Amino acid sequence: MNLKELAKALNLSISTVSKAMRDSYEISDTTKKAVKQKAIELNYQANPYASSLRKQKSKTIALVIPEIANNFFTLAINGVESIAQEKGYHVLIYLTHEDADKEVEIAKILQNGRVDGILMSTTCNGIDTKHLEELREKDIPLVLFDRVVDQISTPKITTDDYNSGFNATEHLITKGCQRVSFLSISPNLSICNKRMNGYQDALIKYHIKSNSNWLVQCSNDDAYNKNVIRKLLSRKMIPDGIFASVEKLAIMVYEVCEEMGIKIPEQLKIISFSNLQTASLLNPSLTTITQPAYEMGREAASILFRLIEKKGSNFILEKTVLKSTLIERNSTRMVKQ
Amino acid sequence: MNLKELAKALNLSISTVSKAMRDSYEISDTTKKAVKQKAIELNYQANPYASSLRKQKSKTIALVIPEIANNFFTLAINGVESIAQEKGYHVLIYLTHEDADKEVEIAKILQNGRVDGILMSTTCNGIDTKHLEELREKDIPLVLFDRVVDQISTPKITTDDYNSGFNATEHLITKGCQRVSFLSISPNLSICNKRMNGYQDALIKYHIKSNSNWLVQCSNDDAYNKNVIRKLLSRKMIPDGIFASVEKLAIMVYEVCEEMGIKIPEQLKIISFSNLQTASLLNPSLTTITQPAYEMGREAASILFRLIEKKGSNFILEKTVLKSTLIERNSTRMVKQ
Repeated sequence: MNLKELAKALNLSISTVSKAMRDSYEISDTTKKAVKQKAIELNYQANPYASSLRKQKSKTIALVIPEIANNFFTLAINGVESIAQEKGYHVLIYLTHEDADKEVEIAKILQNGRVDGILMSTTCNGIDTKHLEELREKDIPLVLFDRVVDQISTPKITTDDYNSGFNATEHLITKGCQRVSFLSISPNLSICNKRMNGYQDALIKYHIKSNSNWLVQCSNDDAYNKNVIRKLLSRKMIPDGIFASVEKLAIMVYEVCEEMGIKIPEQLKIISFSNLQTASLLNPSLTTITQPAYEMGREAASILFRLIEKKGSNFILEKTVLKSTLIERNSTRMVKQ
Repeated sequence: MNLKELAKALNLSISTVSKAMRDSYEISDTTKKAVKQKAIELNYQANPYASSLRKQKSKTIALVIPEIANNFFTLAINGVESIAQEKGYHVLIYLTHEDADKEVEIAKILQNGRVDGILMSTTCNGIDTKHLEELREKDIPLVLFDRVVDQISTPKITTDDYNSGFNATEHLITKGCQRVSFLSISPNLSICNKRMNGYQDALIKYHIKSNSNWLVQCSNDDAYNKNVIRKLLSRKMIPDGIFASVEKLAIMVYEVCEEMGIKIPEQLKIISFSNLQTASLLNPSLTTITQPAYEMGREAASILFRLIEKKGSNFILEKTVLKSTLIERNSTRMVKQ
């Protein structure tokens, strides 16, 4: 009696039976019960060698992130690390450098059982998600945070990106901006699109005609991004407000404004998603949407360990949404004309 | 014939013979030759199981650093990672959070062969170096960078800390400062002491009487540090120049100056070791001593892989010193009275 025959007898897939035998959180209690009863009935014995290999813990989790020179991720890493240390686990950090191919490569490496679980902030486009599905199929615990892919069935920790995008844009409008530009880091990232949807809905609420020129697509190439921002600020009609989806684009706007002699906030107001420690010390200080990055790291790691330890993993929420905070500073100050 | 008997026949320690048989870079060619000849003579065969275990590569290196919310380390990590990726290696990142006990604990974990080599920027005091010596005794390739311990015999990558300390202090003096304070992050760190020695010698050169009040010891407790800085700037006679040994102390000085209404650079000039991306955007922009962090990471990783691969490892310099750059900005601008 092997796994294949057991699956056939149950009219279930091998993967489902295998997961049920291992108490995977993906399988319902009813199915688990049926599988285990049938296994006893047919005297099925799991291959002890394979099973022991599977049970062998590496005491290591992988943390896959797009970049490290970003205060959101440095804080999130500290959060993850604080939990891993409590659990006596090692943290392997992998950087994808916003390169989807690299992410696929890393996911393949991680399929070999090197780690007991994976935390990931993805750079993939949400269409080619095969590498994530494969991790799920191999029953490797996976938790996505911040940059998540909605269609993968695994726990996800995000912030309220749509609301934050709406509030950031509304903030610029109430400070007098009429031509608000949105700097997107990628058209494929779900969090970036949610921020953009919030932006677009705020424009609609205030009857500001949306203009495709104000929707600026940036990339993972910093030199390219700087040129795109230079072009945006060299137009006949330049924006009077910029909403940057990530911190590094906001810093570039500051640099370009310095180059071109554009005054913040007099000629251009700016707000950005950012966990920059020096936001309050910039000239002028930067208004930010600040995510609870450390807490997100802790929350993601806590959920991952519940999956690894299979403790109450049937009760883990598929989605955990934490709140970001709008911190008003001088870069969006209203200036009397 | 076992290793112990072979060692006895050669009148060498077991560890030396073992290293010689494994072509360790620590052993001279003459000794290696003698050991190998004797091994043939006495028909010594290494235990194949132990040898294969030793040869089994984990394809992983460990990177042990004090903290991650510091642009020097984020850049260095990117440098290390760029080389590891070329070599098909994984990078395990461990944070000590400036805690020497944690560093000892991590070093113990890494003794078990989990990694093929270790890159470390230490937080230890240079006195209790047993954990580093143990790694060397187990012949685990070890490269120290930036925060090194001079007495451990292993390759070290640093910058010219003494010269940089001298130049930073001289810069403040030539801008008119007479009461220059040095903010030390730790009295035990060799790089910090070298920076301080440079500071002290610059004072001597300009016949400025050194004052122990200006030598401020900070710690790994940020709240404590902020209070120390507040006290320094609340004295009857406050410094007119501050030289911060690390970036986070400079940021705190900015925050305290804002709190207390002290104007930079009019009342207080400041220079700091820093790789802060936003240094030029601060109010006022911060004069920095900037280390080639990315290059240091690449250099340290390159040397580590030469040790791991035993390629020309006899020719590896014990010390590699890269140059830092003083970037003058507004925080040390001369102000006409």
